[in-house]
Amino acid sequence: MKKIINQPEEILNQMLEGLSFAYSDLVERINETDVIVRKDKNEGKVGLVSGGGSGHEPSHAGFVGKGMLSAAVCGEIFTSPTPDQVLEGIKAADTGAGVMLIIKNYSGDVMNFEMAKDMAEMEGIEVETIIVDDDIAVEDSTYTAGRRGVAGTVLVHKILGAYADQGKSLKEVKEVADKLVPNIKTIGVALSGATVPAVGKPGFVLEADEMEYGVGIHGEPGYRKEKLQPSKGLALELVEKLKGEFAWKQGDKYAVLVNGLGSTPLMEQFVFMNDVKELFDKEGLDIEFKKVGDLMTSIDMAGLSLTMVKLEDNWKDQLNHPVTTIAW
Amino acid sequence: MKKIINQPEEILNQMLEGLSFAYSDLVERINETDVIVRKDKNEGKVGLVSGGGSGHEPSHAGFVGKGMLSAAVCGEIFTSPTPDQVLEGIKAADTGAGVMLIIKNYSGDVMNFEMAKDMAEMEGIEVETIIVDDDIAVEDSTYTAGRRGVAGTVLVHKILGAYADQGKSLKEVKEVADKLVPNIKTIGVALSGATVPAVGKPGFVLEADEMEYGVGIHGEPGYRKEKLQPSKGLALELVEKLKGEFAWKQGDKYAVLVNGLGSTPLMEQFVFMNDVKELFDKEGLDIEFKKVGDLMTSIDMAGLSLTMVKLEDNWKDQLNHPVTTIAW
Repeated sequence: MKKIINQPEEILNQMLEGLSFAYSDLVERINETDVIVRKDKNEGKVGLVSGGGSGHEPSHAGFVGKGMLSAAVCGEIFTSPTPDQVLEGIKAADTGAGVMLIIKNYSGDVMNFEMAKDMAEMEGIEVETIIVDDDIAVEDSTYTAGRRGVAGTVLVHKILGAYADQGKSLKEVKEVADKLVPNIKTIGVALSGATVPAVGKPGFVLEADEMEYGVGIHGEPGYRKEKLQPSKGLALELVEKLKGEFAWKQGDKYAVLVNGLGSTPLMEQFVFMNDVKELFDKEGLDIEFKKVGDLMTSIDMAGLSLTMVKLEDNWKDQLNHPVTTIAW
Repeated sequence: MKKIINQPEEILNQMLEGLSFAYSDLVERINETDVIVRKDKNEGKVGLVSGGGSGHEPSHAGFVGKGMLSAAVCGEIFTSPTPDQVLEGIKAADTGAGVMLIIKNYSGDVMNFEMAKDMAEMEGIEVETIIVDDDIAVEDSTYTAGRRGVAGTVLVHKILGAYADQGKSLKEVKEVADKLVPNIKTIGVALSGATVPAVGKPGFVLEADEMEYGVGIHGEPGYRKEKLQPSKGLALELVEKLKGEFAWKQGDKYAVLVNGLGSTPLMEQFVFMNDVKELFDKEGLDIEFKKVGDLMTSIDMAGLSLTMVKLEDNWKDQLNHPVTTIAW
């Protein structure tokens, strides 16, 4: 394992210290917690809180700021944060209009965020939750009942964050969330496994010429291994899977995110985006919003994921709504 | 070699197509060139052009946009763009106030950008140049007489771009550039070599527990190989080298950039930033601007670099001047 770290057990603390130092104008770490909050409070508006295990940087702390999250609760690497930490995030995010919790669908996260919701409600804070389960690769998984929550979660932060910033009520934000999440689908491909520092070796190993479709962001098994294909082949496989889910027709409007999983250069992500574009052109889709980069990573995994959002209402405007964050 | 590409010789074209599709609201590719220009022209203001070999994404096309570059000229991977391509960039960037060329100090880049300057001047466009040589690792190198130009170049884009945006003349921008570049120093460490796709194997190989200080962004040799150290050890080495160059004293004001070289997770970059911070605290430096992320990469190299700028005049404000780019 070659990593720029000190002791593995110190990584979370030192990463949060480094992050809050580097972006001290935007965010701060709540004392004696692993919660990153925005400095510029969202007074009187709905607060948005997300989080989960670390190892997916810049998610979620990179999306804390005006127009997106109020707080990110950062668990140990690939480990759900505890309910008391989530509660700290909720309390920091609440400025009187209630708090929306955005939870990726992993059993540990769902349980701990729901417990924190109950605890917050006992303290008089109104809380709603949305569970993101955008990964269409497999049903149920190592740590999940149903589908996993992956890169599409960042688009949920973005769209709900924009509505919250515009003063929508908690009830309204919850209604958007319930409509939005079924319209977001993601599918990925891995070229290598991620190495959790405390473990010291990759969670799974692929042959030198092998890739795996549908791997999860914690290295959960995908749906097929095969010989590495050219980018055009990967694009075709992933777009076909998404087509099967959306059953789209010519002229449908979509947002598209190509997301790097950690060690895949932007160069490759742009080549892949070009291949995806050619398929969308052929399908006659109208791609109204696009983004490329490392938004939801799996430590040092090589590979990428493709997220599509079927756009309704004025979600496109929300995707373009200005934000002040580290990483959007 | 595991890469998400099609044919290696198609990468540059396909990457630029993918990039200009993904960010079609911000930039466009000039027809039949490898030049990316901003859509929102800088009418009547100094144009800024940079570029060089590709493989350093998001540099330089990721920094095209309001407040930074007017155009990026993208060569083949690790290969200087030709003078006629640079000329296209200059012509696109000129809106009457002249053009500043920001050149990383590699012999091929310097030669081709200077030739393009001469060609542009024959067409009546006023052009100035600045050569960035911020890498303090070694004197002279595989492709360079003097010191190499690396991640500090992005801070030159940022500061000069802000001045240009504020309407400074070409003469004034050139004066700032001449004062700024000697105040920028960078030093890096590599944990692995980069693989140029057409070559198919890493440019150099390190042992499983080995790292190398001072490697260039094209894999040029550094100044020392040794056993992988903890992040605190790397931070100490790099900060000591920079201290030797700057000869700083308590209270001096600096900007700091921690730059990932391509496949190093943000998690590690933040851990490293925390270690660097502790050293700066001990030295009594005043760190007035900070940034962390992959700005100047070397394809899929693992490692990072540390850049410091001794701040003078109101450079700090220029670093904070708002921009609209893909990657700042």
